[in-house]
Amino acid sequence: MTPSDTSGTPGVAAKDAVAAAPGLATFWRRYQDLVSETALPYQWEALNDRIPGIEPSHAVRNFKIAAGLEKGDFYGFVFQDSDVAKWLETLSFNLLHHRDPRLEQHADEVIELIEKAQGPDGYLNTYFTIKEPGKRWTNLHEGHELYCAGHFIEAAVAYYEATGKRRLLDVVRRYADLIDSTFGPEPSKLRGYCGHPEIELALVKLSEVTGDTKYLNLARFFIDERGREPYYFDIEYEKRGRTHILPELRHFGREYLQAHVPVREQSAAEGHAVRLTYLYSAVADLARLSEDASLRDACIRVWENATGKRMYVTGGIGSTSFGESFTFDYDLPLDSMYAETCASVGMVFWAHRMLKLEVERRYADVMELELYNGALSGISLDGTRYFYVNPLESFPERSARNPGLRHVKSERQRWYSCSCCPSNITRLIASLGRYVYTVQGNSISTHLYVGGEAELLVDGKRFRVEQTTGYPYDGSVRMTIQDAPDEEIAISLRVPGWCGRYSCTVNGRPWTDVELEKGYLPVRRRWKNGDVVELALEMPVRLIRSHPNVRSSWGKVCCARGPLIYCLEEADNGPGLHDISLAEDPTWTVTRDSGLLGGTATIEGKAFRTEMGSWDDSALYASDGANRRPVSIKAVPYALWGNRGRGEMLVWINSGRSGT
Amino acid sequence: MTPSDTSGTPGVAAKDAVAAAPGLATFWRRYQDLVSETALPYQWEALNDRIPGIEPSHAVRNFKIAAGLEKGDFYGFVFQDSDVAKWLETLSFNLLHHRDPRLEQHADEVIELIEKAQGPDGYLNTYFTIKEPGKRWTNLHEGHELYCAGHFIEAAVAYYEATGKRRLLDVVRRYADLIDSTFGPEPSKLRGYCGHPEIELALVKLSEVTGDTKYLNLARFFIDERGREPYYFDIEYEKRGRTHILPELRHFGREYLQAHVPVREQSAAEGHAVRLTYLYSAVADLARLSEDASLRDACIRVWENATGKRMYVTGGIGSTSFGESFTFDYDLPLDSMYAETCASVGMVFWAHRMLKLEVERRYADVMELELYNGALSGISLDGTRYFYVNPLESFPERSARNPGLRHVKSERQRWYSCSCCPSNITRLIASLGRYVYTVQGNSISTHLYVGGEAELLVDGKRFRVEQTTGYPYDGSVRMTIQDAPDEEIAISLRVPGWCGRYSCTVNGRPWTDVELEKGYLPVRRRWKNGDVVELALEMPVRLIRSHPNVRSSWGKVCCARGPLIYCLEEADNGPGLHDISLAEDPTWTVTRDSGLLGGTATIEGKAFRTEMGSWDDSALYASDGANRRPVSIKAVPYALWGNRGRGEMLVWINSGRSGT
Repeated sequence: MTPSDTSGTPGVAAKDAVAAAPGLATFWRRYQDLVSETALPYQWEALNDRIPGIEPSHAVRNFKIAAGLEKGDFYGFVFQDSDVAKWLETLSFNLLHHRDPRLEQHADEVIELIEKAQGPDGYLNTYFTIKEPGKRWTNLHEGHELYCAGHFIEAAVAYYEATGKRRLLDVVRRYADLIDSTFGPEPSKLRGYCGHPEIELALVKLSEVTGDTKYLNLARFFIDERGREPYYFDIEYEKRGRTHILPELRHFGREYLQAHVPVREQSAAEGHAVRLTYLYSAVADLARLSEDASLRDACIRVWENATGKRMYVTGGIGSTSFGESFTFDYDLPLDSMYAETCASVGMVFWAHRMLKLEVERRYADVMELELYNGALSGISLDGTRYFYVNPLESFPERSARNPGLRHVKSERQRWYSCSCCPSNITRLIASLGRYVYTVQGNSISTHLYVGGEAELLVDGKRFRVEQTTGYPYDGSVRMTIQDAPDEEIAISLRVPGWCGRYSCTVNGRPWTDVELEKGYLPVRRRWKNGDVVELALEMPVRLIRSHPNVRSSWGKVCCARGPLIYCLEEADNGPGLHDISLAEDPTWTVTRDSGLLGGTATIEGKAFRTEMGSWDDSALYASDGANRRPVSIKAVPYALWGNRGRGEMLVWINSGRSGT
Repeated sequence: MTPSDTSGTPGVAAKDAVAAAPGLATFWRRYQDLVSETALPYQWEALNDRIPGIEPSHAVRNFKIAAGLEKGDFYGFVFQDSDVAKWLETLSFNLLHHRDPRLEQHADEVIELIEKAQGPDGYLNTYFTIKEPGKRWTNLHEGHELYCAGHFIEAAVAYYEATGKRRLLDVVRRYADLIDSTFGPEPSKLRGYCGHPEIELALVKLSEVTGDTKYLNLARFFIDERGREPYYFDIEYEKRGRTHILPELRHFGREYLQAHVPVREQSAAEGHAVRLTYLYSAVADLARLSEDASLRDACIRVWENATGKRMYVTGGIGSTSFGESFTFDYDLPLDSMYAETCASVGMVFWAHRMLKLEVERRYADVMELELYNGALSGISLDGTRYFYVNPLESFPERSARNPGLRHVKSERQRWYSCSCCPSNITRLIASLGRYVYTVQGNSISTHLYVGGEAELLVDGKRFRVEQTTGYPYDGSVRMTIQDAPDEEIAISLRVPGWCGRYSCTVNGRPWTDVELEKGYLPVRRRWKNGDVVELALEMPVRLIRSHPNVRSSWGKVCCARGPLIYCLEEADNGPGLHDISLAEDPTWTVTRDSGLLGGTATIEGKAFRTEMGSWDDSALYASDGANRRPVSIKAVPYALWGNRGRGEMLVWINSGRSGT
């Protein structure tokens, strides 16, 4: 369990890959600044119920009540505590590159409060403490106790790594010890696991930061136990007298809980999408740390199904709002899907862990896809509005007037009663640096192209590298070695799956005739300070088609460039986007527009739109009449949609090719 | 209120338009025989819970319990009684052309039972009698009391007309008198109306058959009162202490109940689709009988919206399963719709009454569309399986595995817990004769082409006409006058909106240069017995497109011939129907196939299907690879789909024309 990359390494991780190169990492720096300067303070105010007109949170107040500092009732979802934990975690990641004494003081205060709300035996959960004292651990199916514990563990690890302060880490260790003494295979313990995976991946982190394998073993117990017969959630249901906390969950099957079969027997992405990604993030960790081939195989099987059969082109997962779940292979409806922000964030977590397990481009390709598209669309350009559902089409009137599509919002919302997504996208953005590289042995794999400095440990020795890049709008990447040990080290550069042509130089000399290793271009040498590797990835506009079995996008194409999926918005193209069809040769033009959407690149091309022609407007059906007229269309990056008021949006455009 | 057509005319109506020409009316005769010989006995067994493995009905048993003949609890929906009434009504219509002493005996027995279940004051409802005695008239919103009353009135009128037996008519008159003394504008009465319109149209029939205008006035009261402020359903809710019978109804707005505004202020088709058609059927009756222009205008406004903006190409209405409701203009999703059989049957009721109000082709066009498509698809070729939802696409795996689409069944079901549709489609088929003609003054309008004899009253005089036709597969119609009074009478022949070319002869001589009057070709003359009018309607294969605002079918076409909408089935074309696109020139072939689906005409044409080509099957997205190959496709009438086991079905096919 030697930390093998920037994550989990206090002091070293403090020099975050993104943070140290101001002015260079334009794209992500803007988002990290947004999280630091706007989203974190905004979310803090939201958690403290100081923003009028939004869904009440009550999350901080629940802690005050549980700590005995205030009187009142618990309010919110049973997992409301996790919003505080995820805010703390975001803040911790942010402190690595944006020191902010005021926010750190809020953090210290809320940590003090959390400590006060902790029971003498280590128990920490405001719902059960306030509302159902004595009922702890009786409803793992619905109660989210271990889920909330997991988020506090993640927050504590991150805060400790960022600040060196141990207070919250000590709180969660006490709690984790209580959990460890409560759950396990021994007859005196409960053989249960949480209805929402999360604690498993958190325990891996706790084990790594403390060096205590007890937590890793507990994570393994939870993973091994999940889905076994007799079915734990039935047993506890009878035992507690058939009561419910979230009765709506009874509509969903065991898949929803990722408990329909043991993990090692799973082969498809089923059930609640977020639960799946959190679970498999931990499974991938365990597979790596335990060198467990059966867990690794399960990871790969489910990954291939999730990404090869059940993922939107934006990276979104979850084809139905019913249980926020996967449905079946190639079922990717464009209007009624879920594609939750949290699920795309979870895919980044999982992809990152798959890369630690095995460096293969396909994992990094999905990680990049999620980062730039399905996950990033979850936050507005002003940092205070969030999507829960990330649709592939937005038609505001339909969302407003077709009740089956009410969950598909046409505008980001300021907060949610279940507000899991806002802090999930912000914690991802704040921690982006740890997704750029992984280190295996004496090989550094570069998965993402993100400007910034990184300090890595290679075979225990310091390796410093700086990246500059115009990504995602420009495929040129320059890596300058700043500090390298005197030994042969490979820097492997990912050539993205979307990239058809690329070139590479080392200190200006072509680095050619090198075969890609699982999609990565290895540059193996003894590095000297000042060595420069340059990679140029061509980024033409691409038209993407979906597998012919995908009914919803059959005969349609999606426009992409580099890692960015593009979409059409009403703001640029007027209403009725569904009637656009591409010209056979769209003759694309890419334009950098510094004034649009905080500075972006647009794609323009030739298309056609329907004209009413001789169509009698009062006729709903007719044999003919409508014509088409040539138009120019303008596409913008999907992640940036919905920042110009309510309007239509469309990812999949009718193809100009007839009949396919 | 002189009966102006075959309906409501005992003795005269006994010679039903369809019945008297055996061997000629092939298409409808098969369905009427099916109702007579299979569906009626089957439904009787179902209502008596003697069919194993189907949803229990308990409907007859509820009457036995209410009558004190058996002990037990009420079971089923609050409107379970209506299933018995609709069975009786179907049987009554059937008796006009299929005398069946055994079924008539069942009817007499159940009528005796109904009489025994009636309270001394005339009250008749098994739910309230058994389960909520003393709560009658306290929950018109959910209770369906007046709805059930309406169905008994309809059954009683039909049974009286078919048999001359008055027993059930007397029962419902006592009940109607009780209702009349309970509801009305007087301070001593309740100013309420039913949450589900139905009694209004029934009271018009009762008034017609009894000659008592009291019932017509009561219908008018219910229509006038609906949607007024203060809102009756709120008042009764508070009065009864906020209890519920069907708590799920609280999710739906006032539109669902057709009570959001008074009828005269309605301008769009909103809310529950069946409720709307039943309401507007009565409104059209009232507009005609009272010569009420404001009601007539409301009918026309709502009709134009329903049929011009919110109706599927099959005639289906109700774009969402949520409240089985309309949504908004041009919102016609193909996979998640409702398009309930009852709603299409209700459209026939409404269209028929619009034709009585004013002979205009557009009403008959929709009536015909519903009859041959959206309504008829509700029953299987064996008469014992029924669709509730009539989708425009069937993809069995999606129905099974995408929970948002579970209501869209891929196979007709043997029965339903809410089994309104089976008896609705059978009562329509059994009574088809009354939809063929209407008589206004000395003009006979021929709306439908259905083989059979009809006896009409024109200015009080007998007019007998026989129709022979190969409809719907052949557009030749021959009308032979069998008995006509010695005066000038116009026979107006509808030239369907779908028909581009037609010709007409009278006794073999061309009847040309006559302008259509609102879509009808008038043949005005003194008729002699043996006169023959022949009409030939050309029936080429048509490709129908939808208004460009309809997103779901943009770029797609639907194949039709004559009154029939066609569809593709997996049985003829293999799976994956979504990947078919028509050739630019499909070169249609129409083939009569006596062995297929009970004898039908298929349409075959040229198309393309996707071939995987160089597409890597494991890739969900790629820039290219799939090809297309030429294929021949075969389409069958939509009404006949789903009679060959589970399989895919598709109405809207990708157009061969690129970009429109």
